[in-house]
Amino acid sequence: MAKRTEPYIPGEQVSRQDSIKLNTNENPYPPSPAVITAISKEMERGLQLYPSPTANELCQKIGQVYGLAPEEVFVGNGSDEVLAFSFMAFFEPGKKIRFPSVTYSFYPVYAKLFDIPFEEIPLHEDFSVPIKRFYQSEGGVILPNPNAPTSLYKELDQIEAIIQNNPDQVVIIDEAYIDFASGSAIELVAKYDNLLVIQTTSKSRSLAGLRVGFALGNKTLIDALVRIKDSFNSYTLDRLALVGAKAALEDQVYFKKTTEMIIKTRQKTSDMLTTLGFNILPSQANFLFVTHATVPAEMIYGQLKEAGIIVRHFNKPPIDNYLRITIGTDEQMGKLVEKLKEII
Amino acid sequence: MAKRTEPYIPGEQVSRQDSIKLNTNENPYPPSPAVITAISKEMERGLQLYPSPTANELCQKIGQVYGLAPEEVFVGNGSDEVLAFSFMAFFEPGKKIRFPSVTYSFYPVYAKLFDIPFEEIPLHEDFSVPIKRFYQSEGGVILPNPNAPTSLYKELDQIEAIIQNNPDQVVIIDEAYIDFASGSAIELVAKYDNLLVIQTTSKSRSLAGLRVGFALGNKTLIDALVRIKDSFNSYTLDRLALVGAKAALEDQVYFKKTTEMIIKTRQKTSDMLTTLGFNILPSQANFLFVTHATVPAEMIYGQLKEAGIIVRHFNKPPIDNYLRITIGTDEQMGKLVEKLKEII
Repeated sequence: MAKRTEPYIPGEQVSRQDSIKLNTNENPYPPSPAVITAISKEMERGLQLYPSPTANELCQKIGQVYGLAPEEVFVGNGSDEVLAFSFMAFFEPGKKIRFPSVTYSFYPVYAKLFDIPFEEIPLHEDFSVPIKRFYQSEGGVILPNPNAPTSLYKELDQIEAIIQNNPDQVVIIDEAYIDFASGSAIELVAKYDNLLVIQTTSKSRSLAGLRVGFALGNKTLIDALVRIKDSFNSYTLDRLALVGAKAALEDQVYFKKTTEMIIKTRQKTSDMLTTLGFNILPSQANFLFVTHATVPAEMIYGQLKEAGIIVRHFNKPPIDNYLRITIGTDEQMGKLVEKLKEII
Repeated sequence: MAKRTEPYIPGEQVSRQDSIKLNTNENPYPPSPAVITAISKEMERGLQLYPSPTANELCQKIGQVYGLAPEEVFVGNGSDEVLAFSFMAFFEPGKKIRFPSVTYSFYPVYAKLFDIPFEEIPLHEDFSVPIKRFYQSEGGVILPNPNAPTSLYKELDQIEAIIQNNPDQVVIIDEAYIDFASGSAIELVAKYDNLLVIQTTSKSRSLAGLRVGFALGNKTLIDALVRIKDSFNSYTLDRLALVGAKAALEDQVYFKKTTEMIIKTRQKTSDMLTTLGFNILPSQANFLFVTHATVPAEMIYGQLKEAGIIVRHFNKPPIDNYLRITIGTDEQMGKLVEKLKEII
């Protein structure tokens, strides 16, 4: 009776109170205090009333932060929903889209759900993305930058080359981790009408629990997303998520401070793991993608788990001997390194 | 480039502070105070962490309230999302589904979005649903009870007959307004594996602003919805919506009190409008569907709007001479009646 689908499997949730959760790339710091204030105030205004179906104030705020008009901004219930709507709006059955063979594992799930054929482009041996293989796609391109779970970032001129070489197709750059990297493709939005940039408040804005993602692009692309959304669910963001995300975007000082702390901890952790014999890919995300010279990843994963430290292991070649480790606080990473010293 | 869709158009949102909003069937009373407490507490627990992807605690609570197992409960981002997932899970291209010709106007929107053919069954002249016309459907049935915007309720034995006469198809009973009516089809869930009941916390639980809907049905149906959801968005409900809805469901005393107040106000308003020459359908919802003997609905709508009282007018035969009026507080309805006296 039901459609055949192969669901995405999110990172495991842990209930142990004392565990250190480094498996779903959450921010170790709470959101800006302004978020809590805004939500508390909104609760008094009445949860019995529907939210704004257009989310206009939030779109305006996001546009303001990134130098775009509100009409160039789309918001959704987490970047996962924005991605799902984008697959519905821009990719079609019969036309093959391309994404890397090692990437966010939700892409093939969406493609199967919406009957969109796809080509998984193998990465280079160093896990970098072979840019030219994304030129002249039949049905469009979706590419995370930085890529996950590899943590590798591609310079903007190479992203731009992909956009230029797919003039009649939509190129989606999924920038979930971009605030921990050197430069966003948002600056290309004004230049290319086939570019859609997707971001989220889940990582760098510490709002994984609130489910707010957004897309930036030419008004025509945004209109197409709005049409899909209005044919699916009039109100995808609740009142509290709308004001919470807006408050987070307003507090750029807090955002920059916490982002820089994570980048510093990333460098320190990387240095410490190197001395333990790990090979670490040059991360521009809020996680490290690591492999050890002698000890198998699966064994390390298991022993860390026993000790209450949860990291992510993908049991799938060619990354089955790698671990993805979220950057937590300095203290959490210190405990991780201590435990790894014991294991290795 | 983008798929052809015809979006649903929600009731207008008003920004005028002093206006009386009787156009989107919101509850005039705020949610239970326990909702605010629960959300405030959850905020302290950390919005930087993802919500539960399975929403297990909320499913358990809903199951408990309605005498079902958690495996017989599905939750989503408003009943609109639950409906969208249901169209994806249970209806298929090539097999005609049936719904009433006058009903929730989102159904044809979903059907077009997912390429599902449909047959709109004309209502009887008194706007009641012709039950037998829903027997032996090719692809399934979706029927709101009470129906909207007519406000009319069908007795359970007639709903059961539709379920019995579609043994190989899914029958969805959309019970957005059921708490203002005499009996829910939930009691039939244990008996029929082709029945899915969809409800929402937006109306009777005063949580339109929080976006939490749910479906109740046989485990096989719920599993199918979970598979679609997990192929679309891992976390459809944010942390605050999860705990807020749970708290609302726990406070049955408050729920019963406010629901009864609305039902009483409905009766009083209905009586007053009758004396003004309105014909009112026997409502079992939190709104009235009315027409006036001599004054055209569109004119009444316009004059009420000028006075800051917003009701809903659907400019579409055969209901273009009707107004849908949400039941507000006694005070709001008093002001409505005063204004109507002037107009008529």
